[in-house]
Amino acid sequence: MPENKVVRLAHGGGGSMTQQLIEKIFLPVFGNSVLNRLDDSAFIPWPGTGLAFTTDSFVVKPVFFPGGDIGRLAVCGTVNDLAASGAEPKYISAGFIIEEGFPFDDLRRIAVSMKEAAEEAGVCVAAGDTKVVGKGQCDGLFINTSGIGLVEKEPVTGSGAVPGDAVLVNASLGRHGLAVVTARDELGFSDRISSDVAPLNRLASSVRAECRVHAMRDATRGGIAAVLNEIAVQSGAAIELKESLIPLDEDVKAACALLGFDPLYVANEGVMAFFVAENEAEKALAVMKKNVYGRSAARIGSVLEAPRGRVTLKTILGSHRIVDMPSGEQLPRIC
Amino acid sequence: MPENKVVRLAHGGGGSMTQQLIEKIFLPVFGNSVLNRLDDSAFIPWPGTGLAFTTDSFVVKPVFFPGGDIGRLAVCGTVNDLAASGAEPKYISAGFIIEEGFPFDDLRRIAVSMKEAAEEAGVCVAAGDTKVVGKGQCDGLFINTSGIGLVEKEPVTGSGAVPGDAVLVNASLGRHGLAVVTARDELGFSDRISSDVAPLNRLASSVRAECRVHAMRDATRGGIAAVLNEIAVQSGAAIELKESLIPLDEDVKAACALLGFDPLYVANEGVMAFFVAENEAEKALAVMKKNVYGRSAARIGSVLEAPRGRVTLKTILGSHRIVDMPSGEQLPRIC
Repeated sequence: MPENKVVRLAHGGGGSMTQQLIEKIFLPVFGNSVLNRLDDSAFIPWPGTGLAFTTDSFVVKPVFFPGGDIGRLAVCGTVNDLAASGAEPKYISAGFIIEEGFPFDDLRRIAVSMKEAAEEAGVCVAAGDTKVVGKGQCDGLFINTSGIGLVEKEPVTGSGAVPGDAVLVNASLGRHGLAVVTARDELGFSDRISSDVAPLNRLASSVRAECRVHAMRDATRGGIAAVLNEIAVQSGAAIELKESLIPLDEDVKAACALLGFDPLYVANEGVMAFFVAENEAEKALAVMKKNVYGRSAARIGSVLEAPRGRVTLKTILGSHRIVDMPSGEQLPRIC
Repeated sequence: MPENKVVRLAHGGGGSMTQQLIEKIFLPVFGNSVLNRLDDSAFIPWPGTGLAFTTDSFVVKPVFFPGGDIGRLAVCGTVNDLAASGAEPKYISAGFIIEEGFPFDDLRRIAVSMKEAAEEAGVCVAAGDTKVVGKGQCDGLFINTSGIGLVEKEPVTGSGAVPGDAVLVNASLGRHGLAVVTARDELGFSDRISSDVAPLNRLASSVRAECRVHAMRDATRGGIAAVLNEIAVQSGAAIELKESLIPLDEDVKAACALLGFDPLYVANEGVMAFFVAENEAEKALAVMKKNVYGRSAARIGSVLEAPRGRVTLKTILGSHRIVDMPSGEQLPRIC
C-alpha cells in the first residue's frame, strides 16, 4: 500500500504528523465542542461541579527504565494531563493489554509502581480491565489510563498566554527521553540517565494557589518545543526562549551532544510549562522551588506579540533561530 | 520461564483465570473500596450527583467482522458496562494503539463506526489519544474506551439478585463470538453469522423505568455462563436455567454443533441479563420487546436459595448439569 495511505511511526510522535492524523481522520468524524478544544483534558459540564476527563495509552519500550517504569509513567502521564488543565486529579482507570508469556513478577512490580505513584498523586485507581493477546501480538505490555479530575477553579487552557507573560518550567529538560534511550541496550551507554517521571499535580496546584496561571501544559512527546508551539498557536502569540536560561543537566547535555538530539525536542514526563504575568514570575518560581519536583525551576523565556504562533530561541551568541513544531518524534515509543 | 509464572492467553478470557489474575496481582496492590466491588463500572462519590466510571480495551481479531467492527465494539462495550451498572452513559474516551502500516481508510471507517454507535447510544466522544508502534509490535489496532455515566437512580450491582427472581435476557445468545470465529478465514465458513454488538443503554433504562431491576450485567467474555456465575456468587444465591427456554438462533445452533462450542460460554456483545421479581417478569419482557435489541427477549431461568453461588441447567431431558464458571475463553481475542 502507498506510504501516504497508511499510518506511519511518526504519526505517533506528538508533533505535526500526529496533528495531521487527528485533523484528517478523527476530528472530521468525532468533532464536537468538547473534543475540538484539543487541550490535555476535556471539560465536561456536569451537574454540581465541573469535571475534566482525559485518556492516554502507554507503549514505552522497554517497560522498565532508570527512574521509572510503564506503570509510574501511565499514572503520572494522566495525572499531569488533568493537572495541566487546572483540574484536581481524583480517579484513574487502568486498562492492561498483556502479551502471553509476560512474567507475573514484572506485572506485579509494575502494579506496585502504579499504586505508589497514585498514592503520591492522591488519586484512586477506580476501574480496571485486562486483555491478553498471543505471543508476538503486542510488545510485552501496553497500559491505558483514563482520568477524572475535579474542576473547582477556572480551568486552564492552552489559549490563555498573553504578550508580556513569563514562560517558566519546573525542572530541567530532556531526562525522560534519554532515560528510555539509554535503557535500550543497543546504544551501550554505561552511565544511565534517570527519567524525571513524576506526578506534578501538587506542584501545579500550589503555583495556582499563589499566582494567576494564564496557560500551562506538560511537555511530554515532542518535548518542550511541541507544547510551546501548541500554546503559541492556540494563544495567537509569539514565544521567545533564551538559550542561556534553559535548564539542562550535564548528563543530558553530554548525551544529546553524542546522539545529536536537540533537548528542546526530547520527551519529558516531569516538566510543566507555566505562563504567568511578568510580575508574578518570581513568586511562581519560589513556590515551585519548595516542591521536590520544582528545585530546578527556571524562567526560560517570554511571550511577545509577534510573530504570532511562532517559537524562537535567542542563542547564547545572540542570534535567533526558529523552534519549529516537530513533525514526528526523534524516538518512537518513548511513552 | 515456568508456565505458572507468566501470563497465559486464558488469563484474558474473562473466566476464573482472569479472576485469579485480578485477585493475585491487581487487587492486593490496588485494593480500595471503589475498585473492590468488581462490578462493571465503579461508583464514584462526586459532589452533586453520583458518577459511574469504567474502562475496557478491545483487541478483537479481525478488526472487521460481520455485523460490526472494533470501533462499534469499543463504544458499545463501554456503554453497556455503564448501563449494566444502572448509569446513564454520557462521555467516552478513545485511546488508539495503531500498528505502523495500518491503512488510513480502515482507520477512518472504524472511526465512523464509533461515531455512529456513539450517536445511537447518545454519548459524546470527549477525549482521545493516539499511539503508533512499529510493525509487528501490535496486531493492527487496539482501542481502549473509558466511560463516564450519570447515576441518578439507585445504582445496580451484581449482588442484588434474590431467590424468586426471574432471569431474563433481551436477545438470543452466542452471536458475537461466532461472528468473530466465522470472520477468521481459517475455518472456511461460507455462511457468516453477524454479531449482535449493540448499545443496550436505552433498552436497560426503559426496563428500569417500568420495573425494579435487582441485578443486571452484560454477557460478554465467557458468555452468559460467566456473568451468571459472577452474579450467583456476588448475590449468594443459586441460578437455575431451563435449556428449553434459552433463545438460540438456528445459525448459531448449527455452528456450535459443528465447532463443539457450548453457546452458554460464547461471547455476546448485545445481551444483557436482567434479574427482576417473578411478578415483574412479563412486564419487563414486554418492555424489552418494544426495543429493536429486545425482540428475542426471553425468560431463561430463576433464582433459587441453594446451592448458593451455583448455576445449573435443567436440560430438555429433565436432568440437571452444573454450568461452571469458565476458566479461560474458548476463543481468544473475541473483544
